[in-house]
Amino acid sequence: MTDQTEIPRFRIRLSFDDDWVMGPGKAELLERIARTGSIAAAGREMNMSYKRAWQLVEVMNEMFREPLVQSSRGGARGGGAVVTDAGQRVLAAFRGVEAAARSAAQPHVAVLNEMLSDMSGRK
Amino acid sequence: MTDQTEIPRFRIRLSFDDDWVMGPGKAELLERIARTGSIAAAGREMNMSYKRAWQLVEVMNEMFREPLVQSSRGGARGGGAVVTDAGQRVLAAFRGVEAAARSAAQPHVAVLNEMLSDMSGRK
Repeated sequence: MTDQTEIPRFRIRLSFDDDWVMGPGKAELLERIARTGSIAAAGREMNMSYKRAWQLVEVMNEMFREPLVQSSRGGARGGGAVVTDAGQRVLAAFRGVEAAARSAAQPHVAVLNEMLSDMSGRK
Repeated sequence: MTDQTEIPRFRIRLSFDDDWVMGPGKAELLERIARTGSIAAAGREMNMSYKRAWQLVEVMNEMFREPLVQSSRGGARGGGAVVTDAGQRVLAAFRGVEAAARSAAQPHVAVLNEMLSDMSGRK
Protein backbone atom coordinates (compact mmCIF):
# COMPACT_ATOMS: atom_id res chain seq x y z
CA MET A 1 0.00 0.00 0.00
CA THR A 2 1.13 3.56 -0.40
CA ASP A 3 1.14 5.78 2.58
CA GLN A 4 -1.14 8.60 1.59
CA THR A 5 -1.82 10.49 4.73
CA GLU A 6 -0.92 13.85 3.25
CA ILE A 7 -3.57 16.15 1.89
CA PRO A 8 -4.28 16.21 -0.97
CA ARG A 9 -4.25 12.57 -1.88
CA PHE A 10 -2.82 12.02 -5.37
CA ARG A 11 -4.47 9.64 -7.77
CA ILE A 12 -2.54 9.18 -10.99
CA ARG A 13 -3.75 7.22 -13.97
CA LEU A 14 -1.49 6.51 -16.92
CA SER A 15 -3.36 5.86 -20.16
CA PHE A 16 -1.27 4.08 -22.74
CA ASP A 17 -4.35 3.47 -24.81
CA ASP A 18 -8.12 3.64 -24.28
CA ASP A 19 -8.17 0.25 -22.56
CA TRP A 20 -4.60 0.16 -21.36
CA VAL A 21 -4.62 2.18 -18.19
CA MET A 22 -2.35 1.72 -15.21
CA GLY A 23 -3.64 3.33 -12.05
CA PRO A 24 -3.93 3.03 -8.27
CA GLY A 25 -6.52 0.24 -8.40
CA LYS A 26 -4.39 -2.14 -10.44
CA ALA A 27 -1.31 -1.27 -8.38
CA GLU A 28 -3.14 -2.06 -5.16
CA LEU A 29 -4.48 -5.29 -6.63
CA LEU A 30 -0.94 -6.39 -7.56
CA GLU A 31 0.28 -5.66 -4.04
CA ARG A 32 -2.55 -7.63 -2.51
CA ILE A 33 -2.06 -10.57 -4.87
CA ALA A 34 1.63 -10.63 -3.94
CA ARG A 35 0.70 -10.71 -0.26
CA THR A 36 -2.25 -13.10 -0.32
CA GLY A 37 -1.14 -15.35 -3.19
CA SER A 38 -4.69 -15.24 -4.51
CA ILE A 39 -6.53 -13.09 -7.03
CA ALA A 40 -9.85 -13.83 -5.33
CA ALA A 41 -8.59 -12.91 -1.87
CA ALA A 42 -6.92 -9.74 -3.18
CA GLY A 43 -10.12 -8.69 -4.92
CA ARG A 44 -12.20 -9.46 -1.84
CA GLU A 45 -10.03 -7.18 0.25
CA MET A 46 -10.85 -4.40 -2.19
CA ASN A 47 -14.58 -5.21 -2.28
CA MET A 48 -14.20 -6.27 -5.86
CA SER A 49 -16.00 -9.17 -7.49
CA TYR A 50 -13.93 -12.19 -8.47
CA LYS A 51 -14.80 -11.47 -12.08
CA ARG A 52 -13.64 -7.87 -11.85
CA ALA A 53 -10.34 -8.81 -10.21
CA TRP A 54 -9.70 -11.35 -12.96
CA GLN A 55 -10.53 -8.80 -15.65
CA LEU A 56 -8.00 -6.36 -14.23
CA VAL A 57 -5.34 -9.07 -14.11
CA GLU A 58 -6.10 -10.01 -17.71
CA VAL A 59 -5.76 -6.41 -18.85
CA MET A 60 -2.43 -6.08 -17.04
CA ASN A 61 -1.16 -9.32 -18.53
CA GLU A 62 -2.16 -8.11 -21.98
CA MET A 63 -0.77 -4.58 -21.58
CA PHE A 64 2.74 -5.70 -20.81
CA ARG A 65 4.93 -8.01 -22.83
CA GLU A 66 5.48 -10.39 -19.93
CA PRO A 67 2.62 -11.45 -17.66
CA LEU A 68 2.50 -9.58 -14.35
CA VAL A 69 0.52 -12.28 -12.58
CA GLN A 70 0.77 -16.02 -13.03
CA SER A 71 -2.04 -18.12 -11.76
CA SER A 72 -2.97 -21.76 -11.54
CA ARG A 73 -6.63 -22.55 -11.22
CA GLY A 74 -7.78 -25.53 -9.19
CA GLY A 75 -5.37 -28.19 -7.96
CA ALA A 76 -5.01 -29.58 -4.46
CA ARG A 77 -4.77 -26.19 -2.78
CA GLY A 78 -7.40 -24.53 -4.96
CA GLY A 79 -4.94 -22.73 -7.21
CA GLY A 80 -2.97 -19.64 -6.47
CA ALA A 81 -1.40 -16.61 -8.00
CA VAL A 82 2.01 -15.00 -7.92
CA VAL A 83 3.21 -11.61 -9.00
CA THR A 84 6.06 -12.18 -11.44
CA ASP A 85 9.35 -10.29 -11.61
CA ALA A 86 7.84 -8.21 -14.39
CA GLY A 87 4.87 -7.50 -12.12
CA GLN A 88 7.18 -6.35 -9.35
CA ARG A 89 9.03 -4.08 -11.77
CA VAL A 90 5.80 -2.53 -13.07
CA LEU A 91 4.57 -2.01 -9.53
CA ALA A 92 7.82 -0.38 -8.46
CA ALA A 93 7.81 1.87 -11.53
CA PHE A 94 4.22 2.95 -10.88
CA ARG A 95 4.96 3.70 -7.22
CA GLY A 96 7.98 5.60 -8.48
CA VAL A 97 5.76 7.69 -10.76
CA GLU A 98 3.53 8.52 -7.80
CA ALA A 99 6.37 9.44 -5.46
CA ALA A 100 8.23 11.53 -8.02
CA ALA A 101 5.04 13.30 -9.06
CA ARG A 102 4.01 14.13 -5.52
CA SER A 103 7.40 15.47 -4.64
CA ALA A 104 7.89 17.57 -7.79
CA ALA A 105 4.36 18.97 -7.64
CA GLN A 106 4.77 20.15 -4.06
CA PRO A 107 5.20 23.90 -4.78
CA HIS A 108 2.02 23.95 -6.87
CA VAL A 109 0.15 21.87 -4.33
CA ALA A 110 1.16 24.39 -1.67
CA VAL A 111 -0.56 27.14 -3.67
CA LEU A 112 -3.75 25.08 -3.85
CA ASN A 113 -3.64 24.18 -0.15
CA GLU A 114 -3.28 27.82 0.75
CA MET A 115 -6.29 28.82 -1.33
CA LEU A 116 -8.45 26.01 -0.01
CA SER A 117 -11.50 26.67 2.15
CA ASP A 118 -11.26 25.85 5.80
CA MET A 119 -12.07 22.18 6.11
CA SER A 120 -12.41 22.20 9.88
CA GLY A 121 -15.99 23.45 9.69
CA ARG A 122 -17.06 20.44 7.64
CA LYS A 123 -18.33 17.25 9.15
CA MET B 1 -6.37 22.70 -22.96
CA THR B 2 -3.27 20.76 -22.12
CA ASP B 3 -1.28 19.28 -24.87
CA GLN B 4 -1.24 15.61 -24.08
CA THR B 5 0.08 13.95 -27.16
CA GLU B 6 2.71 11.93 -25.34
CA ILE B 7 2.04 8.35 -24.31
CA PRO B 8 1.07 7.66 -21.61
CA ARG B 9 -1.46 10.35 -20.95
CA PHE B 10 -1.39 11.46 -17.32
CA ARG B 11 -4.59 11.99 -15.40
CA ILE B 12 -4.05 13.39 -11.94
CA ARG B 13 -6.75 13.86 -9.33
CA LEU B 14 -6.07 15.69 -6.11
CA SER B 15 -8.46 14.72 -3.29
CA PHE B 16 -8.55 17.27 -0.52
CA ASP B 17 -11.56 15.56 0.93
CA ASP B 18 -14.11 13.00 -0.23
CA ASP B 19 -16.09 15.62 -2.14
CA TRP B 20 -13.32 18.10 -2.72
CA VAL B 21 -11.46 16.79 -5.69
CA MET B 22 -9.55 18.81 -8.28
CA GLY B 23 -8.90 16.97 -11.50
CA PRO B 24 -8.64 17.26 -15.26
CA GLY B 25 -12.40 17.64 -15.79
CA LYS B 26 -12.76 20.68 -13.57
CA ALA B 27 -9.58 22.20 -14.99
CA GLU B 28 -10.86 21.80 -18.53
CA LEU B 29 -14.23 23.24 -17.54
CA LEU B 30 -12.53 26.32 -16.08
CA GLU B 31 -10.54 26.82 -19.28
CA ARG B 32 -13.64 26.53 -21.41
CA ILE B 33 -15.64 28.90 -19.20
CA ALA B 34 -12.81 31.44 -19.48
CA ARG B 35 -12.88 31.14 -23.25
CA THR B 36 -16.64 31.00 -23.87
CA GLY B 37 -17.82 33.22 -21.00
CA SER B 38 -20.57 30.70 -20.33
CA ILE B 39 -20.95 27.71 -18.02
CA ALA B 40 -23.56 26.20 -20.33
CA ALA B 41 -21.42 26.55 -23.44
CA ALA B 42 -18.34 25.20 -21.66
CA GLY B 43 -20.29 22.19 -20.42
CA ARG B 44 -21.78 21.60 -23.86
CA GLU B 45 -18.32 21.47 -25.40
CA MET B 46 -17.53 18.68 -22.96
CA ASN B 47 -20.81 16.82 -23.58
CA MET B 48 -21.85 17.63 -20.06
CA SER B 49 -25.36 18.51 -18.98
CA TYR B 50 -26.02 22.07 -17.85
CA LYS B 51 -26.81 20.72 -14.39
CA ARG B 52 -23.55 18.79 -14.19
CA ALA B 53 -21.47 21.79 -15.30
CA TRP B 54 -23.15 23.94 -12.63
CA GLN B 55 -22.54 21.31 -9.97
CA LEU B 56 -18.84 21.22 -10.76
CA VAL B 57 -18.66 25.01 -10.60
CA GLU B 58 -20.46 24.98 -7.26
CA VAL B 59 -18.04 22.42 -5.83
CA MET B 60 -15.08 24.50 -7.01
CA ASN B 61 -16.55 27.67 -5.53
CA GLU B 62 -17.08 25.88 -2.23
CA MET B 63 -13.68 24.17 -2.15
CA PHE B 64 -11.70 27.37 -2.36
CA ARG B 65 -11.97 30.42 -0.15
CA GLU B 66 -12.63 32.74 -3.07
CA PRO B 67 -15.01 31.80 -5.88
CA LEU B 68 -13.30 30.54 -9.01
CA VAL B 69 -16.23 31.39 -11.29
CA GLN B 70 -18.56 34.33 -11.05
CA SER B 71 -21.80 34.12 -12.93
CA SER B 72 -24.84 36.25 -13.56
CA ARG B 73 -27.97 34.45 -14.56
CA GLY B 74 -30.41 36.05 -16.96
CA GLY B 75 -30.16 39.71 -17.98
CA ALA B 76 -30.25 41.13 -21.46
CA ARG B 77 -27.57 38.82 -22.84
CA GLY B 78 -28.77 35.75 -20.95
CA GLY B 79 -26.15 35.92 -18.24
CA GLY B 80 -22.53 34.97 -18.39
CA ALA B 81 -19.66 33.65 -16.40
CA VAL B 82 -16.10 34.71 -15.78
CA VAL B 83 -13.18 32.88 -14.28
CA THR B 84 -11.89 35.04 -11.43
CA ASP B 85 -8.27 35.78 -10.57
CA ALA B 86 -8.50 33.03 -7.94
CA GLY B 87 -9.81 30.72 -10.64
CA GLN B 88 -6.87 31.53 -12.89
CA ARG B 89 -4.45 30.90 -10.04
CA VAL B 90 -6.02 27.53 -9.23
CA LEU B 91 -5.96 26.56 -12.88
CA ALA B 92 -2.31 27.54 -13.24
CA ALA B 93 -1.38 25.64 -10.08
CA PHE B 94 -3.20 22.53 -11.29
CA ARG B 95 -1.50 22.69 -14.69
CA GLY B 96 1.74 23.17 -12.80
CA VAL B 97 1.08 19.99 -10.81
CA GLU B 98 0.51 18.10 -14.05
CA ALA B 99 3.61 19.43 -15.79
CA ALA B 100 5.91 18.92 -12.80
CA ALA B 101 4.55 15.41 -12.22
CA ARG B 102 4.97 14.34 -15.81
CA SER B 103 8.48 15.65 -16.01
CA ALA B 104 9.67 14.19 -12.68
CA ALA B 105 8.04 10.81 -13.37
CA GLN B 106 9.76 10.45 -16.73
CA PRO B 107 12.42 7.86 -15.70
CA HIS B 108 9.75 5.59 -14.20
CA VAL B 109 7.45 6.10 -17.17
CA ALA B 110 10.32 5.06 -19.44
CA VAL B 111 10.51 1.73 -17.60
CA LEU B 112 6.79 1.15 -18.12
CA ASN B 113 6.93 2.16 -21.78
CA GLU B 114 9.75 -0.27 -22.37
CA MET B 115 7.84 -3.14 -20.79
CA LEU B 116 4.63 -2.38 -22.65
CA SER B 117 3.22 -4.74 -25.26
CA ASP B 118 3.49 -3.71 -28.86
CA MET B 119 0.51 -1.47 -29.54
CA SER B 120 0.92 -1.44 -33.30
CA GLY B 121 -0.91 -4.74 -33.67
CA ARG B 122 -4.03 -3.35 -32.04
CA LYS B 123 -6.85 -1.73 -33.92
